[in-house]
Amino acid sequence: MTTGDRSIAFFGLGNMGLPMAANLLSAGYAVRGYDPVPTAAASARAAGLEVAETPAEATIGADAVITMLPSGQHVLDAYQRGAGIIDTVANGTLVVDCSTIDIADARALHELAGGAGLPSLDAPVSGGVVGATAGTLTFMVGGAPEALEAAEPIFAAMGKRTVHCGDAGAGQAAKMCNNMILAASMIAVAEAFVLAEALDLSPQALYDVVSTSSGQCWAVTANCPVPGPVPTSPANRDFQGGFATSLMAKDLRLAASAAAGGEVDIAIGRTALAIYEDLVTTVPDRDFSVVIDAIRRRSGTTEGTGTA
Amino acid sequence: MTTGDRSIAFFGLGNMGLPMAANLLSAGYAVRGYDPVPTAAASARAAGLEVAETPAEATIGADAVITMLPSGQHVLDAYQRGAGIIDTVANGTLVVDCSTIDIADARALHELAGGAGLPSLDAPVSGGVVGATAGTLTFMVGGAPEALEAAEPIFAAMGKRTVHCGDAGAGQAAKMCNNMILAASMIAVAEAFVLAEALDLSPQALYDVVSTSSGQCWAVTANCPVPGPVPTSPANRDFQGGFATSLMAKDLRLAASAAAGGEVDIAIGRTALAIYEDLVTTVPDRDFSVVIDAIRRRSGTTEGTGTA
Repeated sequence: MTTGDRSIAFFGLGNMGLPMAANLLSAGYAVRGYDPVPTAAASARAAGLEVAETPAEATIGADAVITMLPSGQHVLDAYQRGAGIIDTVANGTLVVDCSTIDIADARALHELAGGAGLPSLDAPVSGGVVGATAGTLTFMVGGAPEALEAAEPIFAAMGKRTVHCGDAGAGQAAKMCNNMILAASMIAVAEAFVLAEALDLSPQALYDVVSTSSGQCWAVTANCPVPGPVPTSPANRDFQGGFATSLMAKDLRLAASAAAGGEVDIAIGRTALAIYEDLVTTVPDRDFSVVIDAIRRRSGTTEGTGTA
Repeated sequence: MTTGDRSIAFFGLGNMGLPMAANLLSAGYAVRGYDPVPTAAASARAAGLEVAETPAEATIGADAVITMLPSGQHVLDAYQRGAGIIDTVANGTLVVDCSTIDIADARALHELAGGAGLPSLDAPVSGGVVGATAGTLTFMVGGAPEALEAAEPIFAAMGKRTVHCGDAGAGQAAKMCNNMILAASMIAVAEAFVLAEALDLSPQALYDVVSTSSGQCWAVTANCPVPGPVPTSPANRDFQGGFATSLMAKDLRLAASAAAGGEVDIAIGRTALAIYEDLVTTVPDRDFSVVIDAIRRRSGTTEGTGTA
């Protein structure tokens, strides 16, 4: 982006998209948003964003398009040939999809964009709503280096870190691999804390050992599933906020789908998926560390918040 | 220990016990060792240790006894009433078991010692042969605070960190919980790297994302299962050295046994146990990160060292 390329069409003004678009506005970009959900559009207008009535109106004069949508189908529908974004934007417009979607869908979008001569990136994020609001997201990016170079200032306005993971789809691949590790380590940490309770080992003692030993992981040192040892972790506020179990289940489904396609045996990943698919039926909006309550219930122990 | 309490009987002079005993000797303790395996006894003598011909001879004049043995049965046999350590040591001798054993066995030893008026600690270690040799072990300790106070100088001669985890058995509980998390996170990390290969995401790119994101864990940042990103990890030397799969399988069996006893549902822990039980049949002595080769083989991918 040069200083002249400052106009952005932003599709998807939900919990993540709205604060991201607002940060672009704050950074001096001209942002025109679009969201088919009336309440989302209204919230965006209330936040000072210009919101178009139609997708085509949103892309008028845009130098770049960003999409932050719930699924691969939503993304492909939004960009589709004919009525979609691909045919309404000007030649050379940069296309950036920040949604977390299937690699096959991400690559299909790259092909669609490439066929129309548009530079494109898959750029899923980590950091959640907190990171989106604070402008501290990490972007995991797949696509051509020149496209990334053009997008760097845009990412810098919404986040604090960009990792170029490789070609088309590599950003999605990195995110699903990371989150599969995260899910497995969180469940293992939660199992360990419940086991410790049964063995009369205090949560603080287990934390003191694990946080400084070979079991150390982000799931325990940043997102500890018991209240106390890490005061900022969601366990201290009844698992409100944080990274929802429904989103973790979605990421694990993407990983399982990719693994099946590549004939990769992910035994731990499958076990984690089954556990989060089950959690979504009862506590879809709680932080994913709420898995500890489900483990307590299955174990017949009496402690726990009774949330899950 | 006062300066007068400097005589230690050390039972079990294997890969871990010998360097630990040698460090006590270097720190100025009078150490008399014992090991029923002739080659172990010979190696200890070659290292300058005094090695007794019988268990009873080893404990003569000892202010403290340390055991570092392969299993709970070995430990209970060594201490048993009658011919064992409990009845040959002087009143008030400190009993420290550094073996990694079942909590029930550890508590049985505490009861045995308590019944004979002997202060006792369970104090399993982390750090492996490297840590035992360098004197940088971590001791996870269960038992009375006064017993720990007496043992502190001894631990300081063999390690760099001591965590008092709680009452009898708490050291064993902390170690098995930590290692269950370690096993699960390592398998998840290995699955992620194999999945990444199938998705054309480079190992270095995945490392760059995971090591600084929510998937961060010791298994990737210290013991990365692919060569390259972490030059000191066992994957760079064909999984030689490090923490053997047989020891990980043992620790997971202890965790599964404790979980069954406490009716705790450890779904991820059980999955990890099955995977390591399988690995022990082919590569018992390789570092536990060798699990990545087994995942590659099961996945039908062509990369890998062919080790597992």
